[in-house]
Amino acid sequence: MQKLVECVPNFSEGKRISVIHKIANSARKVKGVRVLDVEWDKSHNRSLMTIVGAPEPVFKAVFASIKTATKLIDMNKHKGEHPRIGVTDVVPFVPISGVTIKECVVLSNKLGKKVAEELKIPVYLYEAAAKRKDRVNLAEVRKGEYEGLKNEIETNPNRKPDYGPSKLHPTAGAVVIGARKYLVAFNVNLDTKNVEIAKKIASKIRERNGGLPAVKALGFKVGGYAQVSMNLVDYEKTNFDEAFRAIEKEAKKLRVGIRSSEIYGMIPLEALVRQIRTTFKAIGFKSDQVLEKRIFK
Amino acid sequence: MQKLVECVPNFSEGKRISVIHKIANSARKVKGVRVLDVEWDKSHNRSLMTIVGAPEPVFKAVFASIKTATKLIDMNKHKGEHPRIGVTDVVPFVPISGVTIKECVVLSNKLGKKVAEELKIPVYLYEAAAKRKDRVNLAEVRKGEYEGLKNEIETNPNRKPDYGPSKLHPTAGAVVIGARKYLVAFNVNLDTKNVEIAKKIASKIRERNGGLPAVKALGFKVGGYAQVSMNLVDYEKTNFDEAFRAIEKEAKKLRVGIRSSEIYGMIPLEALVRQIRTTFKAIGFKSDQVLEKRIFK
Repeated sequence: MQKLVECVPNFSEGKRISVIHKIANSARKVKGVRVLDVEWDKSHNRSLMTIVGAPEPVFKAVFASIKTATKLIDMNKHKGEHPRIGVTDVVPFVPISGVTIKECVVLSNKLGKKVAEELKIPVYLYEAAAKRKDRVNLAEVRKGEYEGLKNEIETNPNRKPDYGPSKLHPTAGAVVIGARKYLVAFNVNLDTKNVEIAKKIASKIRERNGGLPAVKALGFKVGGYAQVSMNLVDYEKTNFDEAFRAIEKEAKKLRVGIRSSEIYGMIPLEALVRQIRTTFKAIGFKSDQVLEKRIFK
Repeated sequence: MQKLVECVPNFSEGKRISVIHKIANSARKVKGVRVLDVEWDKSHNRSLMTIVGAPEPVFKAVFASIKTATKLIDMNKHKGEHPRIGVTDVVPFVPISGVTIKECVVLSNKLGKKVAEELKIPVYLYEAAAKRKDRVNLAEVRKGEYEGLKNEIETNPNRKPDYGPSKLHPTAGAVVIGARKYLVAFNVNLDTKNVEIAKKIASKIRERNGGLPAVKALGFKVGGYAQVSMNLVDYEKTNFDEAFRAIEKEAKKLRVGIRSSEIYGMIPLEALVRQIRTTFKAIGFKSDQVLEKRIFK
């Protein structure tokens, strides 16, 4: 099976479009990767790009983009609404196909070492790559942001980075690198205008309240109707079909139907294939049976 | 959307492996196509290959394979169990994505003309490309096979080919070219050993008996259990999820459950995407949201 990994580096630049393009282009130059999306936000003064390919080329492309960003952005001049601790703020590796989360943890460590050694930037590892419990959560790693971390990194042993100097890079600050599962954004629109019903169902199915594993859910009113909006943070634990059926069941209890559903953004083929195995008891179904997958191997 | 077409030429050679490889290699040489499968059968003395790519390269690759086959195979020496009228026996074009069946009919005509003009082989058009009602069905076009057609093509005006001479090519015979929809092979295994139940359900859901459109179904006993075995000849009319639900409903009436299901062989991504739109009311879901599809555009 073809190995595919995704990486979504976030940079502290959302205003100077030419800088953002230079960063993206340095990734594009690496053979074997595709830069699927480049997005930026002026008020956040932040950009992100989605780089996909085999692990090795993605690694090279991400490092190239970090190197370019380090040259072109200065944290001393950066202002923006979004929390950040560095020029390259956060770099998650995400397994797409034929790659485990463990391999993404290995990539995170390899990139962390290289960034620390060659660019002299302190590196924190987060999520699946975290070496300490208090670094799993990104918000905790970013606490105090660039301005607060400047002093803390030198004085507080708990803020010592996983790789690199215990001192912020003079212009690039610090970097958070890690590995996480692919996030599927999935919304289910109910056949009611009563948002309380969506909120009730969301609170019932979310993991935090003892519902479905790896499901975050909220109730909203969208386009006049109640919507259960979900982040499925590990579709191998709860896939969109399972979330759909759970909501359908809860809605039925409340005598409410389902109007429609919506997979927001992109989804890996493997999530579709899993759903077919579950919904149709098609136990042996594999992604290699999808014609398009075989063509572009 | 990326245009993808499949073509599955069948050749009257199933014994001389080197000849089969030469035919496949002449298709492989064309840039932009992939030869996914090459299969052959000795007793049928017949081979087939699955060529996929954008319409233009596939057209070129298929013509190249026909040209090679015409040089290397002689119908006067051919014996085999499977019905055939020529060295290149039948050439179906199948739309996969971003291509209509109409475009495949155009391709069939273009190929028919070229084969007739450059290779001097008579060409019959079948299925969606048929110009006469009595040529829609392949069996009717192949009636009498090579040996019988030899005389008929010259004497019976109803057997006059759509392109090329009213006389078989001295070694290559004639060719049948056409366009058809992608065929999805889908089996549903029932939770009973009673094959009569599978036969009953099959007869209920098949199009011929007023069941689901574009569904062919038979009941078998496979691995000790009853199985409804289907050919879905147009998944835009009846997709595998709709067939599954119809069988589930009929089985329930007969108090039988479903053990498992099986998509046999390959399936176009579009069929998976359609099923998600139907099963989860995910009205807006598009194949471009599948990550892998965007990567290899």
